[in-house]
Amino acid sequence: MAVKERRTTRIVNVGGVQIGGGAPVSVQSMTNTPTTDVQATVEQIHRLEAAGCDIIRAAVPTREAAEALREIKAAISIPLVADIHFDYRLALMSLDAGVDKLRINPGNIGSEDRVEAVARAAQERGVPIRIGVNAGSIDRERYGLPSAEALVESGLDEVRVLERLGFEDIVLSLKAFDVPMMIKAYELASGRCDYPLHLGVTEAGPAWEGTIRSSVGIGALLAEGIGDTIRVSLTGDPVEEVKVGTEILNSLGLRDMPFTLVSCPTCGRCAIDLSAIATEVRQRLEANPPSKPITVAVMGCVVNGPGEASLADVGIAGGRGSAIIFARGEKLRTVPEDALVDELMMEVERLDK
Amino acid sequence: MAVKERRTTRIVNVGGVQIGGGAPVSVQSMTNTPTTDVQATVEQIHRLEAAGCDIIRAAVPTREAAEALREIKAAISIPLVADIHFDYRLALMSLDAGVDKLRINPGNIGSEDRVEAVARAAQERGVPIRIGVNAGSIDRERYGLPSAEALVESGLDEVRVLERLGFEDIVLSLKAFDVPMMIKAYELASGRCDYPLHLGVTEAGPAWEGTIRSSVGIGALLAEGIGDTIRVSLTGDPVEEVKVGTEILNSLGLRDMPFTLVSCPTCGRCAIDLSAIATEVRQRLEANPPSKPITVAVMGCVVNGPGEASLADVGIAGGRGSAIIFARGEKLRTVPEDALVDELMMEVERLDK
Repeated sequence: MAVKERRTTRIVNVGGVQIGGGAPVSVQSMTNTPTTDVQATVEQIHRLEAAGCDIIRAAVPTREAAEALREIKAAISIPLVADIHFDYRLALMSLDAGVDKLRINPGNIGSEDRVEAVARAAQERGVPIRIGVNAGSIDRERYGLPSAEALVESGLDEVRVLERLGFEDIVLSLKAFDVPMMIKAYELASGRCDYPLHLGVTEAGPAWEGTIRSSVGIGALLAEGIGDTIRVSLTGDPVEEVKVGTEILNSLGLRDMPFTLVSCPTCGRCAIDLSAIATEVRQRLEANPPSKPITVAVMGCVVNGPGEASLADVGIAGGRGSAIIFARGEKLRTVPEDALVDELMMEVERLDK
Repeated sequence: MAVKERRTTRIVNVGGVQIGGGAPVSVQSMTNTPTTDVQATVEQIHRLEAAGCDIIRAAVPTREAAEALREIKAAISIPLVADIHFDYRLALMSLDAGVDKLRINPGNIGSEDRVEAVARAAQERGVPIRIGVNAGSIDRERYGLPSAEALVESGLDEVRVLERLGFEDIVLSLKAFDVPMMIKAYELASGRCDYPLHLGVTEAGPAWEGTIRSSVGIGALLAEGIGDTIRVSLTGDPVEEVKVGTEILNSLGLRDMPFTLVSCPTCGRCAIDLSAIATEVRQRLEANPPSKPITVAVMGCVVNGPGEASLADVGIAGGRGSAIIFARGEKLRTVPEDALVDELMMEVERLDK
């Protein structure tokens, strides 16, 4: 099943990856190596790309970092975004280095002529700008304490600065740690402009909490049809951000993964070691990913087992020390527990051919 | 910030815990020990309760399991739900054993007089019934292949069987592995009846995928104001289900946790070991949980750091080998990296007094 109809937004082209206009929702991340360490940054980007990252961003806090972008860009194949604060010259240098998008807020780079210089240079190169407002850095004198309305006002004010300069190649993000605030801000913005929206829960915390907060916030919006590109923020390895981001999309039918594992929580009815079986099935599928997306169900008992197993491409429904194997909705045979994983994987391979 | 206004539902009383009618959203789980192993089951329920579980369910596949419920019920303090399929006598035995709720689908226990016997016995004891429809076990001859509409029709048909017997003390669940299908089913049901809704993504998979799928599906509905009680399904230790469930509620401002950790994903700007600091702060907060809910921000740099840190109760914003400490929005002092966690925890304790 698909989510609700996607809201229509403009198309923004980021180095060949489309954001908005009905393009597949892309997954972004940000490097956490020093940008000046080209080798470490490139290596991290290659790992991110392998995990499913579509667009990568790097912090550009210094001139040295801006200069390093040229070499990084030459060594990677996914679009590169320069993340800039305060200093408009770093934006100009990043554009010279060949980046595919800027993340910069006009409001924090100073006078209008500086903003104009950046907008003009970006426009000449066909490079879009993401305006990224975060609840934590809102101008409180102007917008008051962070709220959904303050995020939207602040974001749209930034947008208007660029629009006045004739620049409309814009992506907008309105991030907050507060999930209901973030959901409401994007809902409001979605009703007030048609720029593509970059979704994220900011500073979402360590992997466990951050995964839950991001899944709730980003997931709720995507389920409503809002959002064109996403970034999960986790304190830790950015590869984990990309994995979580792609799994959020997969859960909503917005991206196919090589395999989807359906498995029951087990209960007092379960008479096989389902958790161990699920773990082994997952390891084997990861080691030998099928060539086309496949859904595998590992179910513990006869209550929901046969039904779920028959809905999946391949599945098992556990009995006492044995299980029934299903493929494409058909019951195939009963096999003993110790042969279960082998037989299941055999059916996966057979279907994959 | 709070989520959207909660939909109004009837109140159902489950052994002292209210579901619906604006009561706090409760977290449920299910034991995965053999129900006949009273000691193991009671131990698991105590661990679940400590993790924040409000209502616990146990599978009742046999007469021996039904008999064990009496002893289990006597040894625990949270409400106990009997999960029954096929055999109405197990429902009657479970009621005799003193359970606080039944999960049973009239459609799978046979003739109307059996359903009537169960409804009458439940009504006499003031025990509610959850009708729990799962996509995997829908009657396909009657409702066709699983869909949101089929889930709702099937669930409401079960509801009508009880209503015809004058039984309206009902909680309804409409679970599916397919997250958009599950979201749509609950949305439809929410418009068509006012029974409290028990949310869940069924057979959601191992902990990692299951956490994401459950957070997206349950979170999206709660953010809309739909849902009165939740159950996260994960293949593994049910304690993890309860932790994820409470964190979903926490992320939406529906339950306070002892502490909430805001931490940034780090990037090329970060010049302190933020991941290690966040991990240590979390361990210390878990070891000595504050007496009132507190939000702690651990931020890597000056871009969003001071803003987020000042929004939290206590926070740090990292610099180069040092960080600024904030409390209640006030900048307190700059401390070196190696004294950071100690100083931060000192401020947590100070605020907690």
